[in-house]
Amino acid sequence: MHRMMLMLEYDGTDFYGWQVQAEGRTVQGALEEAIRRTTGEHVRVFGAGRTDSGVHAEGQVAHFDTATELPAHRLPGALNHWLPPDVAVLDCREARPGFDARFDAASKLYRYRILLSAARRPLRERYVLRRWEALDVAAMQRCAAKLVGEHDFTSFASEHTRVATRTRRLLRSEMPRRGDEVHYVVEGDGFLYNMVRIIVGTLLEVGRGNMAEEDFAGILAARDRAAAGPTAPAKGLTLVRVNYADDPRQTG
Amino acid sequence: MHRMMLMLEYDGTDFYGWQVQAEGRTVQGALEEAIRRTTGEHVRVFGAGRTDSGVHAEGQVAHFDTATELPAHRLPGALNHWLPPDVAVLDCREARPGFDARFDAASKLYRYRILLSAARRPLRERYVLRRWEALDVAAMQRCAAKLVGEHDFTSFASEHTRVATRTRRLLRSEMPRRGDEVHYVVEGDGFLYNMVRIIVGTLLEVGRGNMAEEDFAGILAARDRAAAGPTAPAKGLTLVRVNYADDPRQTG
Repeated sequence: MHRMMLMLEYDGTDFYGWQVQAEGRTVQGALEEAIRRTTGEHVRVFGAGRTDSGVHAEGQVAHFDTATELPAHRLPGALNHWLPPDVAVLDCREARPGFDARFDAASKLYRYRILLSAARRPLRERYVLRRWEALDVAAMQRCAAKLVGEHDFTSFASEHTRVATRTRRLLRSEMPRRGDEVHYVVEGDGFLYNMVRIIVGTLLEVGRGNMAEEDFAGILAARDRAAAGPTAPAKGLTLVRVNYADDPRQTG
Repeated sequence: MHRMMLMLEYDGTDFYGWQVQAEGRTVQGALEEAIRRTTGEHVRVFGAGRTDSGVHAEGQVAHFDTATELPAHRLPGALNHWLPPDVAVLDCREARPGFDARFDAASKLYRYRILLSAARRPLRERYVLRRWEALDVAAMQRCAAKLVGEHDFTSFASEHTRVATRTRRLLRSEMPRRGDEVHYVVEGDGFLYNMVRIIVGTLLEVGRGNMAEEDFAGILAARDRAAAGPTAPAKGLTLVRVNYADDPRQTG
Protein backbone atom coordinates (compact mmCIF):
# COMPACT_ATOMS: atom_id res chain seq x y z
CA MET A 1 0.00 0.00 0.00
CA HIS A 2 1.09 3.55 -0.70
CA ARG A 3 -0.15 6.55 1.25
CA MET A 4 -0.53 9.41 -1.20
CA MET A 5 -0.69 13.12 -0.41
CA LEU A 6 -2.63 15.29 -2.85
CA MET A 7 -2.48 19.06 -3.30
CA LEU A 8 -5.79 20.38 -4.63
CA GLU A 9 -7.32 23.50 -6.11
CA TYR A 10 -11.07 23.97 -6.49
CA ASP A 11 -13.75 26.52 -7.15
CA GLY A 12 -16.22 25.86 -4.34
CA THR A 13 -19.14 27.67 -5.99
CA ASP A 14 -20.89 24.60 -7.36
CA PHE A 15 -19.89 22.08 -4.68
CA TYR A 16 -21.82 21.20 -1.54
CA GLY A 17 -18.52 21.56 0.29
CA TRP A 18 -15.74 19.05 0.85
CA GLN A 19 -17.48 16.21 2.63
CA VAL A 20 -19.51 13.47 0.93
CA GLN A 21 -23.21 13.86 1.63
CA ALA A 22 -26.36 11.93 0.82
CA GLU A 23 -27.10 14.36 -2.01
CA GLY A 24 -25.18 16.99 -3.96
CA ARG A 25 -21.74 16.92 -5.52
CA THR A 26 -18.80 17.31 -3.15
CA VAL A 27 -15.04 17.63 -3.65
CA GLN A 28 -14.37 14.48 -1.66
CA GLY A 29 -16.92 12.59 -3.76
CA ALA A 30 -15.44 13.84 -7.04
CA LEU A 31 -11.95 12.75 -5.95
CA GLU A 32 -13.06 9.31 -4.80
CA GLU A 33 -14.82 8.80 -8.13
CA ALA A 34 -11.71 9.88 -10.07
CA ILE A 35 -9.54 7.48 -8.04
CA ARG A 36 -12.00 4.65 -8.68
CA ARG A 37 -11.85 5.30 -12.42
CA THR A 38 -8.05 5.57 -12.38
CA THR A 39 -7.12 2.64 -10.12
CA GLY A 40 -10.33 0.62 -9.78
CA GLU A 41 -10.19 1.07 -6.00
CA HIS A 42 -12.96 2.29 -3.73
CA VAL A 43 -11.07 4.46 -1.26
CA ARG A 44 -11.82 7.15 1.28
CA VAL A 45 -10.00 10.48 0.77
CA PHE A 46 -9.26 12.54 3.90
CA GLY A 47 -8.93 16.32 3.57
CA ALA A 48 -6.96 18.68 5.82
CA GLY A 49 -9.81 21.20 5.92
CA ARG A 50 -13.45 20.20 5.49
CA THR A 51 -14.41 23.32 3.57
CA ASP A 52 -18.06 24.40 3.49
CA SER A 53 -20.23 24.82 0.43
CA GLY A 54 -18.96 27.80 -1.58
CA VAL A 55 -15.51 27.92 0.03
CA HIS A 56 -12.62 27.71 -2.45
CA ALA A 57 -9.18 26.13 -2.15
CA GLU A 58 -5.83 26.94 -3.74
CA GLY A 59 -3.90 24.57 -1.51
CA GLN A 60 -6.14 21.93 0.08
CA VAL A 61 -4.25 18.79 1.08
CA ALA A 62 -5.69 15.29 1.26
CA HIS A 63 -4.45 11.74 1.73
CA PHE A 64 -5.57 8.28 0.67
CA ASP A 65 -4.19 4.77 0.41
CA THR A 66 -3.75 2.93 -2.84
CA ALA A 67 -2.22 -0.29 -4.15
CA THR A 68 -1.76 1.24 -7.61
CA GLU A 69 1.55 0.79 -9.38
CA LEU A 70 1.22 4.28 -10.87
CA PRO A 71 4.00 6.46 -9.41
CA ALA A 72 2.89 9.57 -7.51
CA HIS A 73 4.07 11.97 -10.22
CA ARG A 74 1.75 10.29 -12.74
CA LEU A 75 -1.37 10.57 -10.58
CA PRO A 76 -2.21 14.29 -11.16
CA GLY A 77 -2.55 13.81 -14.91
CA ALA A 78 -4.54 10.60 -14.52
CA LEU A 79 -6.91 11.98 -11.87
CA ASN A 80 -7.40 15.32 -13.63
CA HIS A 81 -8.55 13.43 -16.69
CA TRP A 82 -11.57 12.21 -14.69
CA LEU A 83 -12.16 15.22 -12.43
CA PRO A 84 -14.72 17.90 -13.36
CA PRO A 85 -13.39 21.31 -14.49
CA ASP A 86 -13.88 22.98 -11.10
CA VAL A 87 -11.43 20.76 -9.19
CA ALA A 88 -7.88 19.69 -10.02
CA VAL A 89 -4.97 17.83 -8.46
CA LEU A 90 -1.97 20.19 -8.57
CA ASP A 91 0.57 17.74 -7.20
CA CYS A 92 0.86 14.29 -5.63
CA ARG A 93 3.61 12.95 -3.36
CA GLU A 94 4.04 9.61 -1.70
CA ALA A 95 3.88 10.24 2.06
CA ARG A 96 5.12 8.14 4.95
CA PRO A 97 2.68 5.47 6.16
CA GLY A 98 0.44 7.03 8.78
CA PHE A 99 0.70 10.57 7.37
CA ASP A 100 -2.62 12.29 8.11
CA ALA A 101 -3.55 15.38 6.08
CA ARG A 102 -5.79 16.70 8.83
CA PHE A 103 -4.23 15.69 12.12
CA ASP A 104 -0.61 16.21 11.09
CA ALA A 105 -1.28 19.75 9.84
CA ALA A 106 0.83 22.23 11.80
CA SER A 107 -1.14 25.21 10.52
CA LYS A 108 -3.58 26.30 7.84
CA LEU A 109 -3.66 29.61 6.00
CA TYR A 110 -6.96 31.12 4.84
CA ARG A 111 -7.64 34.29 2.85
CA TYR A 112 -10.96 36.14 2.86
CA ARG A 113 -11.38 38.72 0.08
CA ILE A 114 -13.51 41.84 0.59
CA LEU A 115 -13.96 43.93 -2.58
CA LEU A 116 -14.75 47.62 -2.10
CA SER A 117 -16.95 48.47 -5.06
CA ALA A 118 -20.35 50.05 -5.52
CA ALA A 119 -20.95 48.12 -8.76
CA ARG A 120 -21.08 44.39 -9.34
CA ARG A 121 -17.77 43.02 -10.65
CA PRO A 122 -18.45 40.02 -12.91
CA LEU A 123 -14.80 38.89 -13.07
CA ARG A 124 -14.49 38.57 -9.29
CA GLU A 125 -18.03 38.13 -7.94
CA ARG A 126 -17.59 34.39 -7.27
CA TYR A 127 -14.49 34.91 -5.11
CA VAL A 128 -15.14 38.03 -3.05
CA LEU A 129 -17.62 39.58 -0.67
CA ARG A 130 -18.46 42.97 -2.15
CA ARG A 131 -19.14 45.96 0.10
CA TRP A 132 -20.35 49.26 -1.32
CA GLU A 133 -20.31 51.34 1.87
CA ALA A 134 -17.16 53.03 3.23
CA LEU A 135 -15.31 50.84 5.72
CA ASP A 136 -12.93 51.98 8.45
CA VAL A 137 -10.19 49.61 7.32
CA ALA A 138 -7.63 50.92 9.83
CA ALA A 139 -9.97 50.01 12.72
CA MET A 140 -10.56 46.55 11.21
CA GLN A 141 -6.79 46.06 10.89
CA ARG A 142 -6.22 46.92 14.56
CA CYS A 143 -8.97 44.54 15.69
CA ALA A 144 -7.69 41.72 13.46
CA ALA A 145 -4.23 42.04 15.03
CA LYS A 146 -5.70 41.51 18.52
CA LEU A 147 -6.55 37.90 17.64
CA VAL A 148 -2.94 36.76 17.21
CA GLY A 149 -1.89 34.28 19.90
CA GLU A 150 -3.64 31.58 21.87
CA HIS A 151 -7.27 32.26 22.78
CA ASP A 152 -10.55 30.55 23.52
CA PHE A 153 -12.44 31.31 20.30
CA THR A 154 -15.89 30.19 21.51
CA SER A 155 -17.35 33.59 20.54
CA PHE A 156 -16.13 33.06 16.96
CA ALA A 157 -17.42 29.51 16.53
CA SER A 158 -20.74 28.21 15.29
CA GLU A 159 -22.95 27.06 18.17
CA HIS A 160 -23.01 23.68 16.43
CA THR A 161 -19.30 23.19 17.15
CA ARG A 162 -18.65 20.05 19.16
CA VAL A 163 -14.99 19.81 20.11
CA ALA A 164 -13.03 19.10 23.27
CA THR A 165 -11.40 22.53 23.42
CA ARG A 166 -12.12 25.80 21.70
CA THR A 167 -8.64 27.16 22.28
CA ARG A 168 -6.68 27.78 19.10
CA ARG A 169 -3.46 29.60 18.33
CA LEU A 170 -3.39 32.18 15.53
CA LEU A 171 0.05 32.86 14.05
CA ARG A 172 -1.15 35.59 11.67
CA SER A 173 -4.31 37.68 11.67
CA GLU A 174 -4.03 40.73 9.44
CA MET A 175 -5.91 42.77 6.85
CA PRO A 176 -3.65 43.90 4.02
CA ARG A 177 -5.04 46.18 1.32
CA ARG A 178 -4.69 44.75 -2.18
CA GLY A 179 -5.71 47.42 -4.69
CA ASP A 180 -9.49 47.80 -4.44
CA GLU A 181 -9.73 44.81 -2.09
CA VAL A 182 -9.07 44.26 1.59
CA HIS A 183 -8.03 40.74 2.52
CA TYR A 184 -8.28 39.01 5.85
CA VAL A 185 -5.27 36.68 6.04
CA VAL A 186 -5.25 34.26 8.92
CA GLU A 187 -2.97 31.39 9.81
CA GLY A 188 -3.69 29.15 12.77
CA ASP A 189 -2.96 25.75 14.23
CA GLY A 190 -6.64 24.93 13.87
CA PHE A 191 -10.00 26.55 13.23
CA LEU A 192 -13.43 26.02 14.76
CA TYR A 193 -16.51 25.59 12.60
CA ASN A 194 -17.21 28.85 10.67
CA MET A 195 -14.48 30.61 12.68
CA VAL A 196 -12.91 32.60 9.82
CA ARG A 197 -16.29 33.66 8.46
CA ILE A 198 -17.52 34.81 11.91
CA ILE A 199 -14.28 36.76 12.52
CA VAL A 200 -14.74 38.49 9.13
CA GLY A 201 -18.43 39.18 9.82
CA THR A 202 -17.45 40.77 13.14
CA LEU A 203 -14.60 42.81 11.66
CA LEU A 204 -17.07 44.14 9.08
CA GLU A 205 -19.36 45.32 11.90
CA VAL A 206 -16.40 47.30 13.25
CA GLY A 207 -15.58 48.62 9.76
CA ARG A 208 -19.15 49.84 9.27
CA GLY A 209 -19.23 51.51 12.68
CA ASN A 210 -21.96 49.16 13.98
CA MET A 211 -19.58 47.94 16.65
CA ALA A 212 -17.07 50.06 18.58
CA GLU A 213 -13.43 49.15 18.14
CA GLU A 214 -13.05 49.24 21.95
CA ASP A 215 -15.67 46.50 22.29
CA PHE A 216 -13.84 44.04 20.04
CA ALA A 217 -11.52 42.63 22.72
CA GLY A 218 -14.55 42.02 24.92
CA ILE A 219 -16.08 39.70 22.33
CA LEU A 220 -13.23 37.25 22.71
CA ALA A 221 -13.54 37.43 26.53
CA ALA A 222 -17.31 36.82 26.40
CA ARG A 223 -16.94 33.25 25.06
CA ASP A 224 -20.41 33.64 23.61
CA ARG A 225 -21.31 33.36 19.92
CA ALA A 226 -24.05 35.97 20.43
CA ALA A 227 -21.40 38.59 21.26
CA ALA A 228 -19.82 38.38 17.79
CA GLY A 229 -21.13 39.55 14.40
CA PRO A 230 -22.88 37.57 11.69
CA THR A 231 -21.20 34.82 9.66
CA ALA A 232 -19.77 36.29 6.43
CA PRO A 233 -20.73 34.53 3.17
CA ALA A 234 -18.68 31.50 2.13
CA LYS A 235 -17.74 32.71 -1.35
CA GLY A 236 -15.06 35.18 -0.16
CA LEU A 237 -13.09 32.44 1.62
CA THR A 238 -10.19 30.42 0.20
CA LEU A 239 -8.06 27.76 1.90
CA VAL A 240 -4.64 28.92 0.66
CA ARG A 241 -2.18 26.47 2.19
CA VAL A 242 -1.74 23.71 4.74
CA ASN A 243 1.64 23.47 6.46
CA TYR A 244 3.24 20.37 7.97
CA ALA A 245 6.21 20.11 10.33
CA ASP A 246 7.59 17.22 8.29
CA ASP A 247 6.39 18.36 4.88
CA PRO A 248 6.44 15.64 2.19
CA ARG A 249 6.50 18.46 -0.39
CA GLN A 250 9.99 19.38 0.82
CA THR A 251 11.31 15.89 1.36
CA GLY A 252 9.93 14.54 -1.89
CA MET B 1 -30.79 64.11 -25.65
CA HIS B 2 -27.92 63.07 -23.40
CA ARG B 3 -24.84 61.22 -24.64
CA MET B 4 -23.82 58.76 -21.96
CA MET B 5 -20.44 57.10 -21.49
CA LEU B 6 -20.44 53.70 -19.80
CA MET B 7 -17.54 51.86 -18.17
CA LEU B 8 -18.08 48.09 -18.33
CA GLU B 9 -16.71 44.87 -16.92
CA TYR B 10 -17.59 41.47 -18.31
CA ASP B 11 -16.61 37.84 -18.31
CA GLY B 12 -16.47 37.01 -22.02
CA THR B 13 -16.66 33.24 -21.57
CA ASP B 14 -20.36 32.85 -22.30
CA PHE B 15 -20.79 35.73 -24.76
CA TYR B 16 -20.51 35.57 -28.53
CA GLY B 17 -18.35 38.68 -28.28
CA TRP B 18 -19.32 42.33 -28.13
CA GLN B 19 -21.26 42.83 -31.32
CA VAL B 20 -24.94 41.94 -31.84
CA GLN B 21 -25.33 38.95 -34.13
CA ALA B 22 -28.21 37.05 -35.65
CA GLU B 23 -27.84 34.37 -32.95
CA GLY B 24 -26.13 34.07 -29.59
CA ARG B 25 -25.96 36.43 -26.63
CA THR B 26 -23.61 39.40 -26.97
CA VAL B 27 -22.51 42.16 -24.58
CA GLN B 28 -23.93 44.86 -26.86
CA GLY B 29 -27.24 43.01 -27.02
CA ALA B 30 -27.41 42.57 -23.24
CA LEU B 31 -26.76 46.31 -22.72
CA GLU B 32 -29.32 47.42 -25.28
CA GLU B 33 -31.91 45.17 -23.63
CA ALA B 34 -31.08 46.57 -20.17
CA ILE B 35 -31.40 50.15 -21.50
CA ARG B 36 -34.75 49.29 -23.10
CA ARG B 37 -36.04 47.94 -19.79
CA THR B 38 -34.70 50.92 -17.85
CA THR B 39 -35.71 53.80 -20.14
CA GLY B 40 -38.13 52.26 -22.65
CA GLU B 41 -35.82 53.35 -25.47
CA HIS B 42 -34.50 51.20 -28.32
CA VAL B 43 -30.95 52.48 -28.68
CA ARG B 44 -27.71 51.39 -30.27
CA VAL B 45 -24.72 51.12 -27.91
CA PHE B 46 -21.25 51.71 -29.43
CA GLY B 47 -18.23 50.08 -27.80
CA ALA B 48 -14.61 51.26 -27.90
CA GLY B 49 -13.33 47.74 -28.60
CA ARG B 50 -15.41 45.12 -30.37
CA THR B 51 -14.09 42.22 -28.33
CA ASP B 52 -14.32 38.69 -29.74
CA SER B 53 -16.11 35.75 -28.22
CA GLY B 54 -14.30 34.71 -25.02
CA VAL B 55 -12.40 37.99 -24.56
CA HIS B 56 -12.97 39.67 -21.18
CA ALA B 57 -13.12 43.33 -20.20
CA GLU B 58 -12.29 45.18 -16.99
CA GLY B 59 -12.57 48.60 -18.59
CA GLN B 60 -14.55 48.54 -21.81
CA VAL B 61 -16.08 51.94 -22.67
CA ALA B 62 -19.29 52.49 -24.64
CA HIS B 63 -21.58 55.36 -25.54
CA PHE B 64 -25.28 55.76 -26.32
CA ASP B 65 -27.89 58.49 -26.54
CA THR B 66 -30.88 58.72 -24.27
CA ALA B 67 -33.73 61.10 -23.47
CA THR B 68 -34.06 59.67 -19.96
CA GLU B 69 -34.35 62.04 -17.03
CA LEU B 70 -32.34 59.61 -14.89
CA PRO B 71 -29.03 61.28 -13.99
CA ALA B 72 -25.84 59.49 -15.10
CA HIS B 73 -24.90 58.43 -11.57
CA ARG B 74 -28.19 56.54 -11.21
CA LEU B 75 -27.79 54.54 -14.41
CA PRO B 76 -25.27 51.90 -13.19
CA GLY B 77 -27.62 50.66 -10.47
CA ALA B 78 -30.64 50.69 -12.79
CA LEU B 79 -28.88 48.93 -15.67
CA ASN B 80 -27.15 46.37 -13.44
CA HIS B 81 -30.57 45.37 -12.14
CA TRP B 82 -31.45 44.12 -15.64
CA LEU B 83 -28.03 42.92 -16.81
CA PRO B 84 -27.05 39.24 -16.49
CA PRO B 85 -24.42 38.31 -13.84
CA ASP B 86 -21.50 38.19 -16.30
CA VAL B 87 -21.66 41.85 -17.34
CA ALA B 88 -21.93 45.02 -15.23
CA VAL B 89 -21.83 48.79 -15.63
CA LEU B 90 -19.08 50.07 -13.31
CA ASP B 91 -19.67 53.76 -13.93
CA CYS B 92 -21.63 56.15 -16.15
CA ARG B 93 -20.81 59.77 -17.03
CA GLU B 94 -22.60 62.25 -19.21
CA ALA B 95 -20.26 63.01 -22.13
CA ARG B 96 -20.17 65.95 -24.51
CA PRO B 97 -22.47 65.60 -27.54
CA GLY B 98 -20.54 63.85 -30.28
CA PHE B 99 -18.27 61.92 -27.89
CA ASP B 100 -17.45 58.61 -29.59
CA ALA B 101 -16.21 55.73 -27.43
CA ARG B 102 -14.40 54.12 -30.37
CA PHE B 103 -13.14 56.93 -32.58
CA ASP B 104 -12.18 59.31 -29.77
CA ALA B 105 -10.11 56.65 -27.98
CA ALA B 106 -6.47 57.81 -27.74
CA SER B 107 -5.25 54.36 -26.73
CA LYS B 108 -6.39 50.99 -25.46
CA LEU B 109 -4.63 48.75 -22.95
CA TYR B 110 -4.91 44.95 -23.18
CA ARG B 111 -3.52 42.23 -20.92
CA TYR B 112 -2.96 38.62 -22.00
CA ARG B 113 -2.36 36.17 -19.14
CA ILE B 114 -0.16 33.08 -19.63
CA LEU B 115 -0.17 30.71 -16.65
CA LEU B 116 2.85 28.44 -16.27
CA SER B 117 1.43 25.30 -14.69
CA ALA B 118 1.51 21.60 -15.51
CA ALA B 119 -1.83 21.03 -13.80
CA ARG B 120 -5.22 22.53 -14.56
CA ARG B 121 -6.04 25.49 -12.30
CA PRO B 122 -9.81 25.66 -11.74
CA LEU B 123 -9.75 29.14 -10.17
CA ARG B 124 -8.05 30.75 -13.18
CA GLU B 125 -8.76 28.50 -16.16
CA ARG B 126 -11.36 30.87 -17.65
CA TYR B 127 -8.95 33.82 -17.70
CA VAL B 128 -5.57 32.44 -18.71
CA LEU B 129 -3.83 30.42 -21.38
CA ARG B 130 -2.04 27.63 -19.52
CA ARG B 131 1.33 26.35 -20.75
CA TRP B 132 2.97 23.32 -19.17
CA GLU B 133 6.27 23.37 -21.08
CA ALA B 134 9.24 25.53 -20.09
CA LEU B 135 9.23 28.92 -21.87
CA ASP B 136 12.21 31.17 -22.53
CA VAL B 137 10.50 34.18 -20.99
CA ALA B 138 13.56 36.45 -21.33
CA ALA B 139 13.58 35.89 -25.12
CA MET B 140 9.84 36.60 -25.27
CA GLN B 141 10.35 39.81 -23.29
CA ARG B 142 13.06 41.03 -25.69
CA CYS B 143 10.87 40.28 -28.73
CA ALA B 144 7.82 41.98 -27.19
CA ALA B 145 9.87 45.15 -26.63
CA LYS B 146 10.75 45.30 -30.35
CA LEU B 147 7.10 46.07 -31.19
CA VAL B 148 7.00 49.44 -29.41
CA GLY B 149 6.61 52.34 -31.83
CA GLU B 150 4.87 52.84 -35.17
CA HIS B 151 4.84 49.83 -37.48
CA ASP B 152 2.87 48.22 -40.24
CA PHE B 153 1.33 45.28 -38.35
CA THR B 154 0.03 43.38 -41.39
CA SER B 155 1.91 40.25 -40.26
CA PHE B 156 0.04 40.36 -36.95
CA ALA B 157 -3.45 40.89 -38.35
CA SER B 158 -6.10 38.41 -39.42
CA GLU B 159 -6.22 38.07 -43.20
CA HIS B 160 -9.88 39.09 -42.91
CA THR B 161 -8.85 42.59 -41.79
CA ARG B 162 -10.20 45.28 -44.11
CA VAL B 163 -8.89 48.69 -43.10
CA ALA B 164 -7.32 51.63 -44.91
CA THR B 165 -3.99 51.35 -43.13
CA ARG B 166 -2.37 48.66 -41.06
CA THR B 167 0.03 51.02 -39.38
CA ARG B 168 -0.47 51.31 -35.64
CA ARG B 169 1.55 52.82 -32.83
CA LEU B 170 2.29 50.74 -29.71
CA LEU B 171 3.09 52.76 -26.59
CA ARG B 172 3.80 49.71 -24.40
CA SER B 173 4.61 46.12 -25.32
CA GLU B 174 6.06 44.17 -22.42
CA MET B 175 5.91 40.84 -20.63
CA PRO B 176 6.07 41.25 -16.85
CA ARG B 177 6.19 38.15 -14.63
CA ARG B 178 3.37 38.02 -12.10
CA GLY B 179 4.01 35.11 -9.73
CA ASP B 180 3.38 31.91 -11.69
CA GLU B 181 2.02 33.91 -14.65
CA VAL B 182 3.60 35.87 -17.47
CA HIS B 183 1.49 38.71 -18.82
CA TYR B 184 1.66 40.39 -22.18
CA VAL B 185 0.72 44.03 -21.56
CA VAL B 186 0.19 46.13 -24.65
CA GLU B 187 -1.08 49.66 -25.14
CA GLY B 188 -1.64 51.08 -28.59
CA ASP B 189 -3.49 53.78 -30.49
CA GLY B 190 -5.39 51.05 -32.27
CA PHE B 191 -5.37 47.32 -32.92
CA LEU B 192 -6.01 45.27 -36.04
CA TYR B 193 -8.34 42.29 -35.96
CA ASN B 194 -6.83 39.53 -33.73
CA MET B 195 -3.62 41.53 -33.42
CA VAL B 196 -2.95 40.96 -29.72
CA ARG B 197 -3.74 37.25 -29.98
CA ILE B 198 -1.44 36.79 -33.00
CA ILE B 199 1.39 38.67 -31.27
CA VAL B 200 1.00 36.40 -28.22
CA GLY B 201 0.83 33.29 -30.39
CA THR B 202 4.07 34.35 -32.09
CA LEU B 203 5.82 35.23 -28.82
CA LEU B 204 4.91 31.75 -27.56
CA GLU B 205 6.62 30.22 -30.61
CA VAL B 206 9.77 32.10 -29.60
CA GLY B 207 9.34 31.04 -25.97
CA ARG B 208 9.06 27.39 -26.95
CA GLY B 209 12.09 27.58 -29.24
CA ASN B 210 10.04 26.89 -32.37
CA MET B 211 11.07 30.28 -33.74
CA ALA B 212 14.48 31.92 -33.38
CA GLU B 213 14.58 35.20 -31.48
CA GLU B 214 16.66 36.65 -34.34
CA ASP B 215 13.82 35.97 -36.79
CA PHE B 216 11.23 37.93 -34.83
CA ALA B 217 12.08 41.36 -36.29
CA GLY B 218 11.80 39.87 -39.78
CA ILE B 219 8.16 38.92 -39.17
CA LEU B 220 7.18 42.55 -38.83
CA ALA B 221 9.12 43.43 -42.01
CA ALA B 222 7.48 40.58 -43.97
CA ARG B 223 4.01 42.19 -43.83
CA ASP B 224 2.59 38.70 -44.25
CA ARG B 225 0.25 36.93 -41.82
CA ALA B 226 1.87 33.61 -42.77
CA ALA B 227 5.19 34.77 -41.29
CA ALA B 228 3.74 35.05 -37.77
CA GLY B 229 2.64 32.35 -35.32
CA PRO B 230 -0.85 31.00 -34.61
CA THR B 231 -3.63 33.06 -33.02
CA ALA B 232 -3.60 32.50 -29.23
CA PRO B 233 -6.95 31.53 -27.62
CA ALA B 234 -9.35 34.33 -26.71
CA LYS B 235 -9.83 33.42 -23.05
CA GLY B 236 -6.43 34.80 -21.91
CA LEU B 237 -7.22 38.28 -23.22
CA THR B 238 -8.73 41.18 -21.27
CA LEU B 239 -9.45 44.74 -22.41
CA VAL B 240 -8.13 46.58 -19.35
CA ARG B 241 -8.66 50.27 -20.12
CA VAL B 242 -9.53 52.76 -22.85
CA ASN B 243 -7.89 56.18 -22.64
CA TYR B 244 -9.21 59.48 -24.03
CA ALA B 245 -7.40 62.77 -24.54
CA ASP B 246 -10.38 64.65 -23.14
CA ASP B 247 -11.51 62.06 -20.61
CA PRO B 248 -15.04 62.54 -19.27
CA ARG B 249 -14.03 60.46 -16.26
CA GLN B 250 -11.65 63.24 -15.20
CA THR B 251 -13.82 66.22 -16.09
CA GLY B 252 -16.95 64.76 -14.52
